[in-house]
Amino acid sequence: MEKTLQELANLIEGEVLGDTNLIITGISSLDEAREGEITFIAQSKYLNKAKKTKASAIIVSNKIEGIDKPFIITDNPYLAYAKTIALFHQHPHPVLGIDENTILGEGARIGKDVSIYPWVFIGKDVTISNHVVIHPHTSIGDGTFVGEDTTIYSHVSIRENCRIGKRVIIHAGTVIGSDGFGFAPDGNRYCKIPQVGTVQIDNDVEIGANNTIDRGALGKTWIKRGVKTDNLVHIAHNVVIGEDSLLIAQVGISGSTTIGKHVILTGQVGVVGHLEIGDNTIVTPQTGVSGSVPANTIVSGYPHMPHKQWLKSSRCYPLLPQMRKTINKLEKKVKALEEIIQNHTGDNK
Amino acid sequence: MEKTLQELANLIEGEVLGDTNLIITGISSLDEAREGEITFIAQSKYLNKAKKTKASAIIVSNKIEGIDKPFIITDNPYLAYAKTIALFHQHPHPVLGIDENTILGEGARIGKDVSIYPWVFIGKDVTISNHVVIHPHTSIGDGTFVGEDTTIYSHVSIRENCRIGKRVIIHAGTVIGSDGFGFAPDGNRYCKIPQVGTVQIDNDVEIGANNTIDRGALGKTWIKRGVKTDNLVHIAHNVVIGEDSLLIAQVGISGSTTIGKHVILTGQVGVVGHLEIGDNTIVTPQTGVSGSVPANTIVSGYPHMPHKQWLKSSRCYPLLPQMRKTINKLEKKVKALEEIIQNHTGDNK
Amino acid sequence: MEKTLQELANLIEGEVLGDTNLIITGISSLDEAREGEITFIAQSKYLNKAKKTKASAIIVSNKIEGIDKPFIITDNPYLAYAKTIALFHQHPHPVLGIDENTILGEGARIGKDVSIYPWVFIGKDVTISNHVVIHPHTSIGDGTFVGEDTTIYSHVSIRENCRIGKRVIIHAGTVIGSDGFGFAPDGNRYCKIPQVGTVQIDNDVEIGANNTIDRGALGKTWIKRGVKTDNLVHIAHNVVIGEDSLLIAQVGISGSTTIGKHVILTGQVGVVGHLEIGDNTIVTPQTGVSGSVPANTIVSGYPHMPHKQWLKSSRCYPLLPQMRKTINKLEKKVKALEEIIQNHTGDNK
Repeated sequence: MEKTLQELANLIEGEVLGDTNLIITGISSLDEAREGEITFIAQSKYLNKAKKTKASAIIVSNKIEGIDKPFIITDNPYLAYAKTIALFHQHPHPVLGIDENTILGEGARIGKDVSIYPWVFIGKDVTISNHVVIHPHTSIGDGTFVGEDTTIYSHVSIRENCRIGKRVIIHAGTVIGSDGFGFAPDGNRYCKIPQVGTVQIDNDVEIGANNTIDRGALGKTWIKRGVKTDNLVHIAHNVVIGEDSLLIAQVGISGSTTIGKHVILTGQVGVVGHLEIGDNTIVTPQTGVSGSVPANTIVSGYPHMPHKQWLKSSRCYPLLPQMRKTINKLEKKVKALEEIIQNHTGDNK
Repeated sequence: MEKTLQELANLIEGEVLGDTNLIITGISSLDEAREGEITFIAQSKYLNKAKKTKASAIIVSNKIEGIDKPFIITDNPYLAYAKTIALFHQHPHPVLGIDENTILGEGARIGKDVSIYPWVFIGKDVTISNHVVIHPHTSIGDGTFVGEDTTIYSHVSIRENCRIGKRVIIHAGTVIGSDGFGFAPDGNRYCKIPQVGTVQIDNDVEIGANNTIDRGALGKTWIKRGVKTDNLVHIAHNVVIGEDSLLIAQVGISGSTTIGKHVILTGQVGVVGHLEIGDNTIVTPQTGVSGSVPANTIVSGYPHMPHKQWLKSSRCYPLLPQMRKTINKLEKKVKALEEIIQNHTGDNK
Repeated sequence: MEKTLQELANLIEGEVLGDTNLIITGISSLDEAREGEITFIAQSKYLNKAKKTKASAIIVSNKIEGIDKPFIITDNPYLAYAKTIALFHQHPHPVLGIDENTILGEGARIGKDVSIYPWVFIGKDVTISNHVVIHPHTSIGDGTFVGEDTTIYSHVSIRENCRIGKRVIIHAGTVIGSDGFGFAPDGNRYCKIPQVGTVQIDNDVEIGANNTIDRGALGKTWIKRGVKTDNLVHIAHNVVIGEDSLLIAQVGISGSTTIGKHVILTGQVGVVGHLEIGDNTIVTPQTGVSGSVPANTIVSGYPHMPHKQWLKSSRCYPLLPQMRKTINKLEKKVKALEEIIQNHTGDNK
């Protein structure tokens, strides 16, 4: 594919500085770009690297002095990169139809222009909407609904009566609708509580590989529009995740917790059950969230605390041995002072 | 299904206060219950919510003043809920027989009334006992035994020569009997130690989704009766888990560690190898257990310590910067006092 | 299989003390070994146990007084165990050929003496080299290359255009080549960044069960020769792992981080993105690596610090409440001293 610099600028709503008719054949990183390709600078720390790039043009937020190449100037070069790479790498999935090695349950409804790879199990009364792509070895339980333009990779297991929205992407090995972890103690043993709820995943959600999203005990586990999860994320029964929140790899959320919109839970964060985490909250890596968190905050540590407080405390942690020594020394010195003063003043108190 | 209040009271060993002949059609949460349904109160903090419920009757441990509805009084409303929901949602799996897309190895023995979904691989000399249900895409290696009434969800991989008990539930994507992580350093490289042991899972165990349970190096990895694991749990080679212990999501247990009975390892706990954790121990979230733990204790932190001690220390953590400032201030003050006293007493020491 | 003690000594480059013609029929642990078997002592703490073993001979680094059995003396008994167990348990996989339930994409090249179990999906232009074993339900995307003597267990998903080396082992449920977690904020929502890179896994790598290894955003994610990963490990896009490094269970590595050679990341370690971890570094369990780490170091804690410093600080942590009390007491004492001195000296400062 070839595009002129001006065509790319139109796509990313930027302004060309230089030859608008320059032909661009692809986009790559500063290091790997070859002649004819465009590259981008998302962070100012890469400015030096930019001087060595072999790219023929650069997407950047401000003109760089000392580089004699055409630029596209745009407010958000990273977003521009996302759009440009999508342009050059677009290859809509060819419509494969339904492979002959598909099992279709009674009452299953399959939309048009779907691509169903071999050995996909589709239960009774399942709906597969138009333009859905389902990779090999996926299993979809009775009564589940899959919305338009959704892609499900291989070895995904979606249990019965779940609802998956439009333009959803589910990566390989993910399990949706497994039983929540619910047991009632019965003297010495545990009695299983049947998990009779469901899972609802709204439009434009992307779920990473090998996630586990349990069905509600009663009611539903609910992943709202635009949520993105990374790999190996665990979401327990009756959790609700608000719009456009991000869950980075290996996050675990316990049952009945509600996460707001635009929240970011970073890697290996754990969240206790029955909490509320407010909108726009950021939780830093490995934090253990042990109570509800108000909106618009950054929290860290275990138990969690405001991030700035944690930063200060974590800087003291390596100083603990020295602090302890100083305290011991001070104790001795104060004792010595007390004795001297007592001797000199005769104060027996 | 319809049951009278008295019939439900008999099931859950409770006592009816009110119309014993009232017809109940289901059970739901306080919020979601409709007329005709029964609900339950497991914790006193939900008493206020109970006043607004539309349920026709309530399971509770003591009569609630101010609510003019029939009650069933029982010691353990949560257990009563588990039993009642199981009653209303019971639908024994229909017997499907063996799907034609099943591969049966030589010498495989299949019991009666089994349900084997499409594309299940059953190796040589495998035993599948009566009433077993195996969902699509599951793989069971040579020589493995699966006990009666066990349910295995889709995409489960059970390797060769494992033993699965009766009434076991294994959720989707779980791997049982994979090689343990065993390598002997050979100068600069690692030499694989063949993992020739096995996995034994006893009766009434439930294993969550996407777990990994490695086979023994020699001997066996052993999950004893009644153990329940949540999702994404890792159990290394030669680990032993005692009866009725609970492993919450994302727990990881290193090799050759022995866990007692009725232990609770909460979310994201890690346990070092070759340890012993005593009966009835509780390990709080994200704790790193770095040494053996006696029975009947609660431990927290990393390295772990008694929970009460950790609670007190964790409350001091946010105070560290202030403590450090105070120490610095005290050092200056003590130095000043020492100088004053030296000047006044002429003590040159 | 039967071997003389001398034959075993030759294999493990050791020296026999005792009857070189003694017949050995197997190897087992100190506890489980029976007459006719050999056992081994890898750590001196097991010396007492050795006195009770029923084994007929012992592999050990030094003669043990008080045990009247033949020994094989060798520098590295653990390595000797690995080699001996491999000898007694060797059973090369029988060549099964290609199961009839295999889907082979156009242009796929299959080597000789392969074993492909049922329901393996092989995409277009895939290469499967000689002696490869692929267990049931595995899926290999278009253009992927699998090297000689590699074994892939069941339910593995390898996406398109990946490169897997020789003698690689990939355990069940692992996902290789899934999209990296890349999104550009677009005002309130996120725009997906197509992940157009790949994954390269070099020779002699072993990948545990239910791992997730994302493809590069641009360029590749690269697992170099001899790396071994345990279960449930997450490796993000464009990570590079150096030769012979070990990643223990539930480790997570964020995007574009480079790990050196012979590094050991122990259980539940998390590593932030865009870092460099030097050769021979050891990271202790649950550590959060938040910045680059020089070679040949041991680090612990979160944020990470030198292990020895962390050890000292972690010993102070349980003492925090006592330290705080002492500080408060000292404050009062110093204040009292200041008042006494002020009264006695009339010093108003």
